[in-house]
Amino acid sequence: MILAPQALLSAQQQIQRDLHSCLDYFDLPHPLKDAVHHAVMLGGKRVRPALVYASAQLDGDVMSAAARRAAVAVELIHCYSLTHDDLPCMDNDELRRGQPTCHVAYGEATALLAGDILQSMAFEVLGSRMFDTADLPNPAIALRQMQLLATASSKMVCGQVLDLQAEGQSIDQSHLENIHRNKTGALIQAAIMLGATTVLPVAHPSFTHLRIFGQSLGLAFQVQDDILDITADTEVLGKTAGKDIQVQKSTYPALLGLDAAQVYAQQLHDQALEALQQVTGNTQPLQDVTQFLLHRQS
Amino acid sequence: MILAPQALLSAQQQIQRDLHSCLDYFDLPHPLKDAVHHAVMLGGKRVRPALVYASAQLDGDVMSAAARRAAVAVELIHCYSLTHDDLPCMDNDELRRGQPTCHVAYGEATALLAGDILQSMAFEVLGSRMFDTADLPNPAIALRQMQLLATASSKMVCGQVLDLQAEGQSIDQSHLENIHRNKTGALIQAAIMLGATTVLPVAHPSFTHLRIFGQSLGLAFQVQDDILDITADTEVLGKTAGKDIQVQKSTYPALLGLDAAQVYAQQLHDQALEALQQVTGNTQPLQDVTQFLLHRQS
Repeated sequence: MILAPQALLSAQQQIQRDLHSCLDYFDLPHPLKDAVHHAVMLGGKRVRPALVYASAQLDGDVMSAAARRAAVAVELIHCYSLTHDDLPCMDNDELRRGQPTCHVAYGEATALLAGDILQSMAFEVLGSRMFDTADLPNPAIALRQMQLLATASSKMVCGQVLDLQAEGQSIDQSHLENIHRNKTGALIQAAIMLGATTVLPVAHPSFTHLRIFGQSLGLAFQVQDDILDITADTEVLGKTAGKDIQVQKSTYPALLGLDAAQVYAQQLHDQALEALQQVTGNTQPLQDVTQFLLHRQS
Repeated sequence: MILAPQALLSAQQQIQRDLHSCLDYFDLPHPLKDAVHHAVMLGGKRVRPALVYASAQLDGDVMSAAARRAAVAVELIHCYSLTHDDLPCMDNDELRRGQPTCHVAYGEATALLAGDILQSMAFEVLGSRMFDTADLPNPAIALRQMQLLATASSKMVCGQVLDLQAEGQSIDQSHLENIHRNKTGALIQAAIMLGATTVLPVAHPSFTHLRIFGQSLGLAFQVQDDILDITADTEVLGKTAGKDIQVQKSTYPALLGLDAAQVYAQQLHDQALEALQQVTGNTQPLQDVTQFLLHRQS
């Protein structure tokens, strides 16, 4: 078991607190409140918020309200997507993070609506003064964040459609990468960009490198996910292991073989770290998260 | 049959064109593209865009790109909500605007994802330079629009939950109004505010009156909807008439009787028009839409 670095643990504590405050901030009716809480608070690695925080530390270590809002928003989008992915008409999954999925616990209609409101809540959070005692959000930053988050959310759905279309089909590596760039990569990349928007001016040259970093890291994350689906067992994974093979999903290990997939994951990580070297400022937090992701066991 | 005024017809043509451009702007994979097209282009009265345009004309009759984006965005949110409402786990409706609903035509998974992406597309549109050849959106206006649209979208989901909870229950008028203020009223009110943000400075006193106008109009719209569910037949309505009684939904006619519900709809319209009298600028387009809504037959 690889332990998360201290910075990641502290990011996890921070996002846990902020997600709690966020859910308290919204006055949701029952049973929606419980279903949303279930969908959001079950845990998970909180990789995307950790990436927001890490890139928001490129310019020092003061965490602004805008960065905290972005971290919450990106995690709400992630939780909405998981809630909808688990629905019977999609993956029909009953287990997520070791717990019953939202529709198993609260019924399909409520789970659907929980996912729906998680998406709009994400944009509400970005435009709110949450975590800020005085000022309204900086409009230019909030606009840029809305663009990044909305585009990534749309891409995520496109990736999901491409993924469903490819089930049971034989596809090549570039097709698989296109699926994953959209389905997983876009939101991971957006998390990094969202954090950076809070500390870097709009046209800063680091954005180009951060984009490449995010793209490589996002793909590496997915390759690793595919590998873990085979090598980890359900208990450690917290979701049904071996599910990909069961639904004849195209995966990197299926396409390349397990060993080559592992080599590929390492190459993508190296590419990510190479791009990160071109970024100015304190990149240590982003390096730490990257290392953790490569060695994770679940 | 009450004909729509010329201004409303021209608004319908405008939004139809703009929705087309918008769908072309997004490069969606099949079958999502067709499902989204189906969900958006089937028609409908386009009441919310008409309200955006009408309030954007408070200060003259030049239609800005920001107003056109807002009209598209609010209609995308409306279409997403209809698509999800029709799903088997929700209202299980097979007919919408005289056509098969999205999941009947494209399957449940694709309809779910079409609804999901329509929501994120709405925010993408708000933050885009769509319909603008040169400038980026004004950040302050885009931020305010994001806040309005996201809040209304969340309220809509809350209203839907309250509505589901109330099925088969006996509820009083204030409970019913709370449901509808969220479920239908919030987005109608937001449409009016979205248009006004493009022409009025942030703290303009007219906003208070527009808010009251929107609240009364939104409620009137719902009372009228409940009445039409009883008095119109399926062919004119384009959706299954009598559905409310079938699922034992609380409605204004059920609560007040049909005649009193009709009187109440008229009172709410009068309240709306009274609030509108306090608004400065050219309120004629908003009056026209209001009159049309009171006399509509579907």
